[in-house]
Amino acid sequence: MVSSRLRHCGRAWYSVRRKVMADAITQRSKDFAQWYQDVIRQGDLAENAEVVRGCMVIKPHGYAIWEKIQHELDKRFKATGHKNAYFPLLIPKSFLAKEAQHVDGFAMECAVVTHSGLKAVKDENGKTSIEVRNKLEEEYVIRPTSETIIGHFFAKWIQSYRDLPLLINQWANVMRWEMRTRLFLRTTEFLWQEGHTAHADHDDALAEVRRMLDVYADFAEHVMAVPVIKGEKTASERFAGAVSTFCIEAMMQDGKALQSGTSHDLGQNFGKAFGVKFQTKDGKEDFVWQTSWGVSTRLVGGLIMTHSDDNGLVLPPALAPIHVAVVPIFKSDAEKTKVFEACDRVKRAAIDAGLECVFDAREEMRPGAKHFEWEQKGVPVRVEIGPRDVDGGSCVIKRRDMSPKDKISSPLEGVGETLARLMPEIQKSLYDRAKAFRDAHTVKADSYDALKQALDGDGKVGNFVLAHWDGTAETEAKIKDETKATIRCIPLEHDGETGKCVLTGQPSKQRVIFARAY
Amino acid sequence: MVSSRLRHCGRAWYSVRRKVMADAITQRSKDFAQWYQDVIRQGDLAENAEVVRGCMVIKPHGYAIWEKIQHELDKRFKATGHKNAYFPLLIPKSFLAKEAQHVDGFAMECAVVTHSGLKAVKDENGKTSIEVRNKLEEEYVIRPTSETIIGHFFAKWIQSYRDLPLLINQWANVMRWEMRTRLFLRTTEFLWQEGHTAHADHDDALAEVRRMLDVYADFAEHVMAVPVIKGEKTASERFAGAVSTFCIEAMMQDGKALQSGTSHDLGQNFGKAFGVKFQTKDGKEDFVWQTSWGVSTRLVGGLIMTHSDDNGLVLPPALAPIHVAVVPIFKSDAEKTKVFEACDRVKRAAIDAGLECVFDAREEMRPGAKHFEWEQKGVPVRVEIGPRDVDGGSCVIKRRDMSPKDKISSPLEGVGETLARLMPEIQKSLYDRAKAFRDAHTVKADSYDALKQALDGDGKVGNFVLAHWDGTAETEAKIKDETKATIRCIPLEHDGETGKCVLTGQPSKQRVIFARAY
Repeated sequence: MVSSRLRHCGRAWYSVRRKVMADAITQRSKDFAQWYQDVIRQGDLAENAEVVRGCMVIKPHGYAIWEKIQHELDKRFKATGHKNAYFPLLIPKSFLAKEAQHVDGFAMECAVVTHSGLKAVKDENGKTSIEVRNKLEEEYVIRPTSETIIGHFFAKWIQSYRDLPLLINQWANVMRWEMRTRLFLRTTEFLWQEGHTAHADHDDALAEVRRMLDVYADFAEHVMAVPVIKGEKTASERFAGAVSTFCIEAMMQDGKALQSGTSHDLGQNFGKAFGVKFQTKDGKEDFVWQTSWGVSTRLVGGLIMTHSDDNGLVLPPALAPIHVAVVPIFKSDAEKTKVFEACDRVKRAAIDAGLECVFDAREEMRPGAKHFEWEQKGVPVRVEIGPRDVDGGSCVIKRRDMSPKDKISSPLEGVGETLARLMPEIQKSLYDRAKAFRDAHTVKADSYDALKQALDGDGKVGNFVLAHWDGTAETEAKIKDETKATIRCIPLEHDGETGKCVLTGQPSKQRVIFARAY
Repeated sequence: MVSSRLRHCGRAWYSVRRKVMADAITQRSKDFAQWYQDVIRQGDLAENAEVVRGCMVIKPHGYAIWEKIQHELDKRFKATGHKNAYFPLLIPKSFLAKEAQHVDGFAMECAVVTHSGLKAVKDENGKTSIEVRNKLEEEYVIRPTSETIIGHFFAKWIQSYRDLPLLINQWANVMRWEMRTRLFLRTTEFLWQEGHTAHADHDDALAEVRRMLDVYADFAEHVMAVPVIKGEKTASERFAGAVSTFCIEAMMQDGKALQSGTSHDLGQNFGKAFGVKFQTKDGKEDFVWQTSWGVSTRLVGGLIMTHSDDNGLVLPPALAPIHVAVVPIFKSDAEKTKVFEACDRVKRAAIDAGLECVFDAREEMRPGAKHFEWEQKGVPVRVEIGPRDVDGGSCVIKRRDMSPKDKISSPLEGVGETLARLMPEIQKSLYDRAKAFRDAHTVKADSYDALKQALDGDGKVGNFVLAHWDGTAETEAKIKDETKATIRCIPLEHDGETGKCVLTGQPSKQRVIFARAY
C-alpha cells in the first residue's frame, strides 16, 4: 500500500532535510558534472587524493560497492573456466616496445620507476630531506595493462595444444598518467580486472572474446541494472595492439556514453611479439591466439550516473552493501524501549531473509539526519518505526527508487519477506527506468545536420544517434572534430538496413552509434 | 577402515610415480631450501619473475590459496568492525620523512617513480627503443606500507571523538626492494592487508592491537592449522615508527621461526607527524592514537613449510582450493562407463556436502600421473574408483596427511558425509602434528653454551630456545651476532619465572624465545 500521507513523526525534519539537501547536492539539470561530484561526496564514496596527482581514495562505502562488483564478476569468470593469478606490478621498459602499436598507445602515460632507494639527509638545521639513490640499470614502468608481462610468462607456460586454452584473470591496480581526471571515471591509478587468454586457433579466441563480452553485458544488465549496447569498436578506437575490440556502451543521465567494458581479439600480435609458440595437434608450430578483456572501478562511476538522483546516490539492490536501514523514532525512554524492540525485530527478520541490514541506533542524531544519510548513501529501502507504528503492529517503508514522499505501510508480521520481495522489484524498476531513458534518447539521423542536431538533444541531455557511416577513419575523424562525438560502436544487433553515409553519401552496411562520451 | 593392501589397479604406476617423485622433490632432510622450492614448483604455486627483480608470479593454484586466506581474514576483520578502503599506490617522497624512525626503516628499500612517460624512438635501422620523459616535480615512492599516506587522510577525516575509533583495512600490493628474495617469504612486491586504526586514547588503541593479534593467532591456528606463539617484539625488532610491536611466531619444519603477522601500537607518532588531531569529549584537542597490523602472502610460505612433506604440498582443508580429487581407473569402454558414473556420483555427493571437488576425467593421462599431480597440489583427499570398486559399491580414499600407502575403503553410499567428516579430522591432525613438532623442538636453556647448543638442535632441525635475557639491546645484538639467532618475541603467556640473563647474568623478568628465523 503506497501512500503519501504525512507521517505522525518526523514532520519537522522533513522540510529541514530538503533544505539541507538542496544545498548539498547540485541538481542534475543545473550542472551534471557538479552533481556527480556532490553525489560522490555526500555518499562518502571517494575523494581526490590531491597529494598524489590524479589519484583517488576509495572510501569504505565506495569500496564496498567495488567489492560487490568484484564478487559478482569473479563468480562469472570462474564459472566460465577462468582462474585468477597475479603478475608483477612493474614491467621492464623494453617489454613495451615489443608490440609496436602497444607502445604507441601506452608509452606516453606510463609512470616510470628509475631508482630503488631513498636516503634521508639532514641539513644544518636538523631538517630531514630525502634524496633519490640506486639508479636502476633498466627502468620499469608501473603496469598500464599487463599484456606484455603476461605474454612473457605465457611463452614459458605454453608448449603444446594440450596447454590451451589458457584462461587467466588478474585483479589488480594499474596506472595511466592521465591529464584530466575525474573520480572513478578516469584516475591515474585505478583498480580493475584483466582477463588474458591464449588459444590454439582464431575461432576459439573469437568465441572467448564474445563470451566475455556477453558476461559483461549480462552483469551490467542484471547486476548493475544498466542497459548496455554490445558492439565492435572502429579501428581508431581499438585497444593498442588488438585486431578488434568489442565493447559494452551505457548511457548516462546526461545522454553521454560510457564505455563500460572491453573485450579484445589480440590475434597473434602479442603471441609473435613474445614468442608464445605451441605445437599444434598435427605436430606443427604456431603462435597462440590471444584475447584480453577488462572492466574497472569506472563501473562505479557508471552506476552513479545511471541511477542516482537529485537526492543523492541510488544503488541497485544487487550491488548495495546495505539493503535496509532501520531508523527509530521516539521521544521518551518508554517509547525508545518499545521502538528499539521493534527495530531489532525488523533487523533480525531482514537478515534472516538474506539482506544486509543496519539498525541505526545512533544517539545524539535526529531521525531526519539519519534518513538523509541513508538516502544519500543509496540504501534501497529505509524502514521507519515510531511508537504508534509499534502499537499498530506496522512499520513504514520508503523505497529509494521512488519519491521520498511515497511511503509503504507494512505489517511487522512477515516484514522480512516483504523487504526481500522488494529487492528484485527495485532492481527491475531501476533497470526499466534506465532502459526507458536510453530508448527515449536514442534516435536515428539520416543527414549530417540531423546528426549534429540529434547529438545536442535538448541542449542538456544528448542522444545516442544511429546513423550510417562509410567505414573510413577520415569520415569518423571529421565528424569527431566537428561534433565532439565519436562512434561508440558498430552494434552487433541491427536490422540489416543498409544506407548512405551521413557525411559522404558513400554506401554503409549498417547504422553505427554516434555519441559524446566520457 | 585403513588398509595398506596393494590395489587391484594402478600397481605399476605406483613404483613409477615414486621414482619420478624422488627426482622431482628434494627430501627435506637433504636440503630444506631446495625442498621448499621444489614443493612450490611441483605444486604449481608460483615462480620467480626474473625479468622483474625479486618479484614473483603467483600462479593459479597459489593464488587460489591466497584467495582463501583473504576470504577467511576479511570475514574476521569485518566481524570486528573494520571496513575496507583503498589508498593510492604512490606516496609523495616527502611524506616518508615526516616520521623520523619510519623514514630510516623504509627509505633504503623504496622503488622511486621519477617520470610520468616514455617515448618510443626509432633508430636508423627502424628498431624501436624507449626513452624516459616528463620528469616529475616531486618523486613518488611505491608504498612499502601505508601509514604515511593514510595518516594524511585520517587528518582530513577525523575532527572529533565521535569520529573515533576509525577502523580501516586495505588489501593491496606493496613493494620493498629486498636484496635476497625467496618465493612467498620475501619478495620485492608482495600482496598483503594492512589495518590502520585511530583511537581516542592509548587504552583503546592497545586493546585494538591485542584484538587483532588474537584474530591473527586464531586464524593461524584454526584455519592454517599452524600453532603460533603470541608475543611482543624487542625494541630492535619493532616496526619503524611503532611504540611497540606484537607478533605471532610459527615454527617451520627446519626449526626456524617465521614471523607470521604483526600488530603495532603506533602511539601518537603518526598522529603527530601528520597532524591527526581531534576534539576530545571534554572539549580539548589531542592527537589520535593509532595502530596498524598486517599479514601478507608470506603466510603461503609458512603454510608450505609447516605441513608439506617429501611428496609435495600438504594443505589444511580450511585453505584447500580443492578438497577432493576423484580419479577413475579403467581399461575397457564398458569399464569406463560404469566407473565414470560412480565418479560423477562421488563428485556430486562431495559438492552437496559443501566440498570443492574435481573429477579428473582427463584423457591421455594415466591414473598414476593424476594421483601424483593431486598429491603434489596438496589436495586433502583423493578418491580412486575402479570397476571392482563399483561392483562392490565402494571407493578408495587416500588422505594427504597420511602415508600414500594408507588407504580407506569406503561405501559409495553416504560418501559425501564420509568425505565431509574427514575434513575436520585432517585439519586437526595437521595442527596436532605441527604442534607436536614445535613442542618437541622447544627447549629451555640456562647458560649461553646451552643456548648455542640448543639453537643448533641436531644440526638439521633447530629449536625455539626459551632463555633469560637482561632486556638490553646490547646483549640481544651480541647474541645475534654470535649465533645468528634473534629474540623472536617476549611471549605474552609465561609462567612468571624470573631468572638471570644467559649472557650477562643480569636479572630477567621472564624467558624470551631465541631462534633463527626467516
